[in-house]
Amino acid sequence: MPRPTDPLSQFRAAADGDRVALAKVLSTVERGGPGAREVVGIAYRRAPHGADGYTVGITGAPGAGKSTLTDRLVALVRAVGRPAPVPDGADDLQVAVLAVDPSSPFTGGAILGDRVRMQGHALDRGVFIRSMATRGHLGGLAVAVPDAIRVLHACGVGLVLIETVGVGQVEVEVASAADTTVVVVNPGWGDAVQANKAGLLEIADVFAINKADRPGARETRRDLELMLDLTATGGWRPPIVETVAASGEGTDALWTAVGDHRRFLTTSGQLGVVRRRRLEVELHRIAMASVEVRFDQLVGRAVYGALVDRVVSGEMDPYEAADQLLGAFVVPAD
Amino acid sequence: MPRPTDPLSQFRAAADGDRVALAKVLSTVERGGPGAREVVGIAYRRAPHGADGYTVGITGAPGAGKSTLTDRLVALVRAVGRPAPVPDGADDLQVAVLAVDPSSPFTGGAILGDRVRMQGHALDRGVFIRSMATRGHLGGLAVAVPDAIRVLHACGVGLVLIETVGVGQVEVEVASAADTTVVVVNPGWGDAVQANKAGLLEIADVFAINKADRPGARETRRDLELMLDLTATGGWRPPIVETVAASGEGTDALWTAVGDHRRFLTTSGQLGVVRRRRLEVELHRIAMASVEVRFDQLVGRAVYGALVDRVVSGEMDPYEAADQLLGAFVVPAD
Repeated sequence: MPRPTDPLSQFRAAADGDRVALAKVLSTVERGGPGAREVVGIAYRRAPHGADGYTVGITGAPGAGKSTLTDRLVALVRAVGRPAPVPDGADDLQVAVLAVDPSSPFTGGAILGDRVRMQGHALDRGVFIRSMATRGHLGGLAVAVPDAIRVLHACGVGLVLIETVGVGQVEVEVASAADTTVVVVNPGWGDAVQANKAGLLEIADVFAINKADRPGARETRRDLELMLDLTATGGWRPPIVETVAASGEGTDALWTAVGDHRRFLTTSGQLGVVRRRRLEVELHRIAMASVEVRFDQLVGRAVYGALVDRVVSGEMDPYEAADQLLGAFVVPAD
Repeated sequence: MPRPTDPLSQFRAAADGDRVALAKVLSTVERGGPGAREVVGIAYRRAPHGADGYTVGITGAPGAGKSTLTDRLVALVRAVGRPAPVPDGADDLQVAVLAVDPSSPFTGGAILGDRVRMQGHALDRGVFIRSMATRGHLGGLAVAVPDAIRVLHACGVGLVLIETVGVGQVEVEVASAADTTVVVVNPGWGDAVQANKAGLLEIADVFAINKADRPGARETRRDLELMLDLTATGGWRPPIVETVAASGEGTDALWTAVGDHRRFLTTSGQLGVVRRRRLEVELHRIAMASVEVRFDQLVGRAVYGALVDRVVSGEMDPYEAADQLLGAFVVPAD
């Protein structure tokens, strides 16, 4: 019997544990457009506003050891959720890893790495690993990733780990989809930490000093502590955990720190606040992406061509031309 | 006498060679908003549509050696333009480096590195180096970078080198501001090249295999040649140049390859075509950024709050809520 190909049937199969169907649903989400919209609508009705799912972001510069650390966390969580071999069931915490690497066309990290990585969990049906580096989705990864998380939660995946590289514009937007964000640094990054306090503080809920068996771990910890001292707000202070992902050392402590942050968010009521704010930003992004579609439908190529001519000839500058474009489109503000 | 602080006076001072004024004008551009708009208008009237300036992009993964290679090119260009010490003058090609690193909050590369780098050219008033990692500009770096290039050209800087990391969404947008783009790879990147043909082909006009004295340079060249063979179109075929930026080896050949591409663009008439297309994309970006400003003015916080409530309660999904947001804003499409 051929597989059903409509979004609803695929979604149902995915929710029933069909991993191939889940992969297809996520591809639909990545592509964006009406298909994605339909899938997200279905997911939302099953698990409104995230429901019981939790999302942890793991971010850091290339080579910091994010993938290895993520794998260790997956192994830990799966072992904790399943102390002895048990059949799949309700108290079996399913885990998905979304490896988001906007720069992967260069590094090949996400694409090549994950094929290898998946093998470590190949026999564990409770683990799902997926790379996202698409540019297809209107609104970009910042819209596609929250949609993918929503689908995963609605399909019964309780924990989603999002792995991102760096803290550029796109990465910060993507990282903001996580409830708890772990920033991975390495020994010897003192200068980088000093130069980038604002960016780190903006996103870090937990710091992991990975490769902590190398020289300089103590100095890096001191630099981070100093940075946190100077900016203490009385709220959550990001704990600093030393890890050696290659050996697994410190993974337990890291997971405990993530759990502490989750508890802090829950007991303080911050979780709801943070998720509401996130949703507000998301609505804005979706609306802007829709405006763009509408704009491109309304403003034809000919209009662009005529305006570009006038800019090339020096008759108007690009901002004046953009104003003309808008004139045909936007309701007057006053 | 205090320095004038209005955009027009600052711009005039910058165009007269005042580097402090130039730095301030670029800060205005980075911030975006009405100030940036005014400056860009002034720049445009002086040098419509790029005028005689040329822009070369240098991009590649972190650690590929882009900064060192860029410095070598700057030294080469400045030496060529000035075979013996001559006073500043019309036939003295001024050079600016824009180091764009959206991920610099992490790596610290752009910020820390450039302070050190500038010292190498500190005595050469014909060289201007600047980092851009801002998120302040509405429309982001993809709008801020072309504006900065426009200002530099209008201030008499004939050659702008844009250094970017990776080929993620933001980087490709930024790289598209360059007339000629050099992609820097390293020996041993065969697998990454294979996995990422599309991304590399999309942006590369010239390949530099940097650190070519390391093992694997020949294999990397072979992989690149193979990729180019398979996708040959009969137009420009990106040349592959081996460089060792640390020693300066191959820099001349790289600069010759860039010159060849420039000549190809000019004689084939492609330069005008490419720049027109770029301008079209830029108009779209500016228009979208303006729509966003207008949108945020029109749609108040209260509207967001009410819609978020309905999404949280499960009454509507985020796409339905975004439609409601838009309803108050967009002219009906039909």
